[in-house]
Amino acid sequence: MSNKKYVFDFEEGNTGMKFLLGGKGSNLAEMTRLGFPVPQGYTISTEACNEYSKIRKYPDGLTEEIEEHQRRLESKLSKELGDTNDPLLLSVRSGAPFSMPGMMDTVLNLGLNDETIDGLVRQTRNERFAYDAYRRFIMMFSDIVLKVDREKFEHELRAMKKKRGVKQDTELTADDLKELVGIYKNIVKEKTGKEFPKDPKVQLDKAINAVFESWNNPRAKTYRKTYKISDDLGTAVNIQTMVFGNKGNDSATGVAFTRNPSTGEKDSFGEYLINAQGEDVVAGIRTPKPLDELGAEMPGVYGELMKVMDNLEKHYRDVQDVEFTIEQGKLYMLQTRTGKRTAVAALKIAVDMVNEGLITEEEAIKRIDPAQLDQLLHPRIDPKAELEVLATGLPASPGAATGEVVFDADTAEEENNAGKKVILVRWETTPDDIHGVIAAQGVLTVHGGMTSHAAVVARGMGKPCVAGCEALNLDLENQLFKLNGKTIKAGDIISIDGSAGRVILGEVSLIPPSVSPDLQKILEWADKYRKLGVRANADTPEDAKKAREFGAEGIGLCRTEHMFFGDERLPLVQQMILSETDEEREKVLEKLLPHQRVDFEGIFKAMTGLPVTIRLLDPPLHEFLPNLADLRVELVEMRFKGVSEVEIAAKEKLLHKVRAETEMNPMLGLRGCRLSVIYPGIYKMQVRAIMEAACSVKKEGFEPVVEIMIPLVSHANELIITREKAEKTVKEVLDERKMDVAYKIGTMIELPRAAITADKIAESAEFFSFGTNDLTQTTFGFSRDDAEAKFLARYLEDKILPVNPFEVLDQKGVGHLVDTACKLARKTKPDIKLGICGEHGGEPSSIGFCHKTGLTYVSCSPYRVPLARLAASQAAIGVSEDTTK
Amino acid sequence: MSNKKYVFDFEEGNTGMKFLLGGKGSNLAEMTRLGFPVPQGYTISTEACNEYSKIRKYPDGLTEEIEEHQRRLESKLSKELGDTNDPLLLSVRSGAPFSMPGMMDTVLNLGLNDETIDGLVRQTRNERFAYDAYRRFIMMFSDIVLKVDREKFEHELRAMKKKRGVKQDTELTADDLKELVGIYKNIVKEKTGKEFPKDPKVQLDKAINAVFESWNNPRAKTYRKTYKISDDLGTAVNIQTMVFGNKGNDSATGVAFTRNPSTGEKDSFGEYLINAQGEDVVAGIRTPKPLDELGAEMPGVYGELMKVMDNLEKHYRDVQDVEFTIEQGKLYMLQTRTGKRTAVAALKIAVDMVNEGLITEEEAIKRIDPAQLDQLLHPRIDPKAELEVLATGLPASPGAATGEVVFDADTAEEENNAGKKVILVRWETTPDDIHGVIAAQGVLTVHGGMTSHAAVVARGMGKPCVAGCEALNLDLENQLFKLNGKTIKAGDIISIDGSAGRVILGEVSLIPPSVSPDLQKILEWADKYRKLGVRANADTPEDAKKAREFGAEGIGLCRTEHMFFGDERLPLVQQMILSETDEEREKVLEKLLPHQRVDFEGIFKAMTGLPVTIRLLDPPLHEFLPNLADLRVELVEMRFKGVSEVEIAAKEKLLHKVRAETEMNPMLGLRGCRLSVIYPGIYKMQVRAIMEAACSVKKEGFEPVVEIMIPLVSHANELIITREKAEKTVKEVLDERKMDVAYKIGTMIELPRAAITADKIAESAEFFSFGTNDLTQTTFGFSRDDAEAKFLARYLEDKILPVNPFEVLDQKGVGHLVDTACKLARKTKPDIKLGICGEHGGEPSSIGFCHKTGLTYVSCSPYRVPLARLAASQAAIGVSEDTTK
Repeated sequence: MSNKKYVFDFEEGNTGMKFLLGGKGSNLAEMTRLGFPVPQGYTISTEACNEYSKIRKYPDGLTEEIEEHQRRLESKLSKELGDTNDPLLLSVRSGAPFSMPGMMDTVLNLGLNDETIDGLVRQTRNERFAYDAYRRFIMMFSDIVLKVDREKFEHELRAMKKKRGVKQDTELTADDLKELVGIYKNIVKEKTGKEFPKDPKVQLDKAINAVFESWNNPRAKTYRKTYKISDDLGTAVNIQTMVFGNKGNDSATGVAFTRNPSTGEKDSFGEYLINAQGEDVVAGIRTPKPLDELGAEMPGVYGELMKVMDNLEKHYRDVQDVEFTIEQGKLYMLQTRTGKRTAVAALKIAVDMVNEGLITEEEAIKRIDPAQLDQLLHPRIDPKAELEVLATGLPASPGAATGEVVFDADTAEEENNAGKKVILVRWETTPDDIHGVIAAQGVLTVHGGMTSHAAVVARGMGKPCVAGCEALNLDLENQLFKLNGKTIKAGDIISIDGSAGRVILGEVSLIPPSVSPDLQKILEWADKYRKLGVRANADTPEDAKKAREFGAEGIGLCRTEHMFFGDERLPLVQQMILSETDEEREKVLEKLLPHQRVDFEGIFKAMTGLPVTIRLLDPPLHEFLPNLADLRVELVEMRFKGVSEVEIAAKEKLLHKVRAETEMNPMLGLRGCRLSVIYPGIYKMQVRAIMEAACSVKKEGFEPVVEIMIPLVSHANELIITREKAEKTVKEVLDERKMDVAYKIGTMIELPRAAITADKIAESAEFFSFGTNDLTQTTFGFSRDDAEAKFLARYLEDKILPVNPFEVLDQKGVGHLVDTACKLARKTKPDIKLGICGEHGGEPSSIGFCHKTGLTYVSCSPYRVPLARLAASQAAIGVSEDTTK
Repeated sequence: MSNKKYVFDFEEGNTGMKFLLGGKGSNLAEMTRLGFPVPQGYTISTEACNEYSKIRKYPDGLTEEIEEHQRRLESKLSKELGDTNDPLLLSVRSGAPFSMPGMMDTVLNLGLNDETIDGLVRQTRNERFAYDAYRRFIMMFSDIVLKVDREKFEHELRAMKKKRGVKQDTELTADDLKELVGIYKNIVKEKTGKEFPKDPKVQLDKAINAVFESWNNPRAKTYRKTYKISDDLGTAVNIQTMVFGNKGNDSATGVAFTRNPSTGEKDSFGEYLINAQGEDVVAGIRTPKPLDELGAEMPGVYGELMKVMDNLEKHYRDVQDVEFTIEQGKLYMLQTRTGKRTAVAALKIAVDMVNEGLITEEEAIKRIDPAQLDQLLHPRIDPKAELEVLATGLPASPGAATGEVVFDADTAEEENNAGKKVILVRWETTPDDIHGVIAAQGVLTVHGGMTSHAAVVARGMGKPCVAGCEALNLDLENQLFKLNGKTIKAGDIISIDGSAGRVILGEVSLIPPSVSPDLQKILEWADKYRKLGVRANADTPEDAKKAREFGAEGIGLCRTEHMFFGDERLPLVQQMILSETDEEREKVLEKLLPHQRVDFEGIFKAMTGLPVTIRLLDPPLHEFLPNLADLRVELVEMRFKGVSEVEIAAKEKLLHKVRAETEMNPMLGLRGCRLSVIYPGIYKMQVRAIMEAACSVKKEGFEPVVEIMIPLVSHANELIITREKAEKTVKEVLDERKMDVAYKIGTMIELPRAAITADKIAESAEFFSFGTNDLTQTTFGFSRDDAEAKFLARYLEDKILPVNPFEVLDQKGVGHLVDTACKLARKTKPDIKLGICGEHGGEPSSIGFCHKTGLTYVSCSPYRVPLARLAASQAAIGVSEDTTK
């Protein structure tokens, strides 16, 4: 026998026991402790689940413990499971440490069978209610425990409604439901070969097992992967006395938020259904009423609910998302948890709560998920655009998206993998659709309210969702829907506006987002606390302006190669590469010079007073040339077509040169500072353009802060000679112009050898910028181009790698090199500036790493600058509270 | 004024002052100290040269110090520079810390002018001698100090001999020489616009300057690069009283070795010329006589010389290479130094000296340059081959080679760079030809003896050389030579046999070398002292046998991909890759299985009792497929030619698949253990073949020691899952065969991330093998294929990198990762086996690093195994003595 305690009465727990009792269990315990009206019950701990996952059976002693707590519950209520006169009915619900809405299983009304049903009828004097509960129980239990397809039961329910000519489940009579119970039991017998289990103790045991099993069902695993929830947390099981929202028109069930989870407004917000059980609301099968109507329908209970919610928010100091049931006029609280919210709401709530004195600035900062900010900084529909609005549904998750219509989650995933943008259109979404929601740009559902599964999941992901668009006439068989007289087929383009609930025909033009006052306030606070600087990666004056608007404190990476691709420029660049002599090359470079100078002038002006780090040319030259195989094919075609010898000779010459420039592994070839050794003219031209631009704008009164960055250094000597040449050119320009412009010269650290020998390299560098994209490639030996297409997806699927190292900085490997380089560099130059300009500079956990390592700044895309400011301040304040999970 | 002492009389120095006084200076001092007959003089230190190199003028105080020592020399001899009655004549010779034969400059007979010449004539009563000295002085001084082309003077000398109808310089009369002096002075005036400098003090000053300058002349720089001699050592300048080997037939000059430098036999060996100055011997202009003839010509002096040489060898405890001059019957020693020798000689001398009790085993081991062993282990001419021998010259450097004839050093270098093998054919080689000797397979000269420049340099490099092949009729103008009635043109193929002096027409078949008794003895000693194991990289049973013969203690790397290229196999491999389904692929793999099994059986048998590390498939699959561009071109051609649709469709299908497999950077793509994730069948087949082979040979009584190696791991999880799968297959085979075969599973460490996380990886590995080729690629970010062609040569030329990191392990970068990995791995598993199987495993300095890092073994090509055994023992004994530089 184990000494472990696996089962806890609600009276025994509290909100701090989240990891042991799950979110739901610990909060039920907390509410019980605080005296809120909670139906009695007990919780089986996550530890029991974890033991079960290992040995695939109850750990020693668990059966006895459950029996003991069950006996205690029965004696407190003076009711017994299986009592044919007055049966105790139970709900059996999963509850993991982090909320995973709808991902795991729940069984309600457990304890019913052909004998106890009569006792329930007698006790409630309500045959219709009793059989409604019974048919629900058989369906849920069969679905979850016996694995009989739920659709079979739903089909019979629809058939019955059709037969009776009614629309609502509530319109079915007790006899209809009784008949349905018989049909349901037959389905079970037919599908499983066995009778539906009668013994309530067996029912309870099987239900608990099923909840344990559900921790490892595929949709729960997918959800955990998406939200990076650890697989070894396990779920608790909550066994609770049933209360009934479906006992007649004085009964109801609903969900509510203490503040509006879409806008953040301080107004309770929710939905309810009269005479229904909880899953009717959440599953979105019937469209519920807004919460304030409850005030008219049941003013007393409504008042009580408002008071409870107010107290809960004050107690938890955060927005609460509650489930409640009204049984014949009496209020019961079934759940409370931190409310998920949109990014807009999160910001407003955080700012308001600071203003209300409920939380501190630091807490407000910690409560915003930086990743969620992304949705605010996504484009929205241009208000001036002319739109063909087909219909309006519920604005279930803000933002806008355009894509091809798909009608199921698998197709959504396939099309997305094929590079297409899709909108997932469903009757309603279920937890089984999770992979489709991940793959889609947005979700449109016919049924369901603001708290339906689709809405909750989409908001969590920051994807637009329009829900409850009942006007939409869906025809899955023919893969189309009709709406407002139009027929839309699979593959047609629609747009959705999740902020206004609009469904729009065709593509729409989107405009870039800006920083709202709430975001502005949070970012102001964030700036107070953060230690990391935040710069942007920007290659054009436009991007530079945007970056500055978003609060960038400089440009951490200006890629000069992008400037080589313009229509006027590419031919010059090609000519430069194909030059046969150095003199010829110099001449072409002279023609490129004015173009580059203009680029730099614009950027220096936009960033006046702030540092601009300009990286000299980095990619292999053949990126600018035609493809070798294409040329060979063209040449063969020319020969067969009998083109003139002169043209053929010219093409052959081009081919010859392109062949000479083509490399086996260009990523590891002639690029970066290696170019400057072989073709010194290129960097010379670029440095000249930079310094001439700096002189010009300074003369106009701007304040250029020049940082010249030399890429792909592996050995200190490369930097020494490249730096020497650059300084010579700088001096030439300043002498010619008779001006003085301050400048720094530094290098990228993007090769393992550079990181390992950073002490030597630092001798010739005023700053380092970690190019973690390239560093990840060489540290892992992964070519990003090839890896993502060839094996990385499989690696993530098989969990060989926990995350994609090109998205989230690999702290153990790449991070170790970054950390080593920082320590070595500071040994040589204690004050050296250290930044990061890989894509990781805009990813929250990587930003946390950069803070910890003591970098000077991170640099990311302009739209991610606010995110980076927030993540940097969270890193400075300490581990962020997990408010979203 | 500086306090430094820059100038030292010979009496002030000793042999330990090599770095300050140079090799020649310190040994002249040592010989003076020991009472050997050395003409008096003084040495200007290398420090003076280094100061000069920095400031391009004499450092403060040097002029005064030279004057002081010059005065002291003059007073000791009672002779003065510039004395018109009895002039002192000087030699001014360079002498660096490491011998660089012929690389730097020497001026003899300094002090002559139109006045002092008369004094010399009077004192010597030998007008012919005096004018011979004078004309030599003008030529050397003009060549070295005034930079007038030496050829101008040589031309006039030849013209004079022709005019007089004589063959030898010695046949010219005093008047001829006097006339020649006049002609020489005119050449100087014409070429420089100035008179030849008359003042002996000016002559001395200019000569010293010229020696300083010569340290940085291009041929000296090339030599230092080849022999890895540091540029900042500088050269000393030795100023010594002239003695004359050209004072008549009782005078002579020569060079001698205390033992034979080609064979190592304990016989003094050398050459001399009667009535000549030293440079006549070294430059190979006249063909000298063998030393033992001196015994007949001058028995007394010969006896004295033999005694001096014997004493010198005993004193220095190593073979000495001496220069001597006999002036009118009196012996003078002009130089002694450690004698360069062939690998064969080095081995024999080392073994003999141990047997003679002169040195210890450890000293013997330290005296063999491991790199030099390479020449012993190169192929030689099959003694049974029928050869068309054109002529026989001197066997100047052993070994054999075949190549295209080239007639100058630049062409040799060009052709070599273009991948051709060449034999350099010259009248004689000069230090200016050094780059041609490096580039050629072997050297053939018309003039010169065993100690000529060509012979010394070729022996040092382990290249075959035939010298003094006077029968060869060279016609440089027409780029051909005639020999034995045949005309050989540039580009024709010849072979040379440097061990027998033979010149052979056409290609010859070479046979592999074996281990001589001397080498065997040295290696036996080496094995006693070394700590590192030595294994071989071998992919076939033949290579495995050879490796075992050479003393390999196992196979460190057996590359299975080479087995995929056989005629029968490649089509199967292609079919396997192009399989559309897993089942199809499995079927093809089944057909490949027996082939692989046979390979492994042969290798296990050859290595019975010794470990065999087999690496599972490593390269990207598209290496086995046709080239994408080729296929595209073929397809276009097929279309134009109107080939049938069926054939086109088949080709298109192939193209499609090849395109899918083609990668941007295959080095960083789908290869190594990544293949096993995507196509698990390949490794499964290979592991099955390995274990089936092991079972079969074990049944036959052999003792297979199986080590399965998984390549390209970057994350511990890759090894975990690949290992699990492999172990499953191993178990299957052993169960089927009902046998037990011990095996280990380990991994390559060839990616930076693997090195950094070696502690985690070691949890699943019984051994590591460092793949330093790949590790160098990713650590530097250099693709070997591209870097060597595109920029690495330039990097070495510009000294951005000191050595090619693919040849010599980069200890600061790549080595740091290796060291880190070893430390981390031992933390997890103190006894883990750690090896290296990159090409660095056969390179002496890298082997030293492996010893220091505490690796278990190195693995290299079979022919390098003896070298590795020796280098490993040297590393264990301590820093090797520098006997070759």
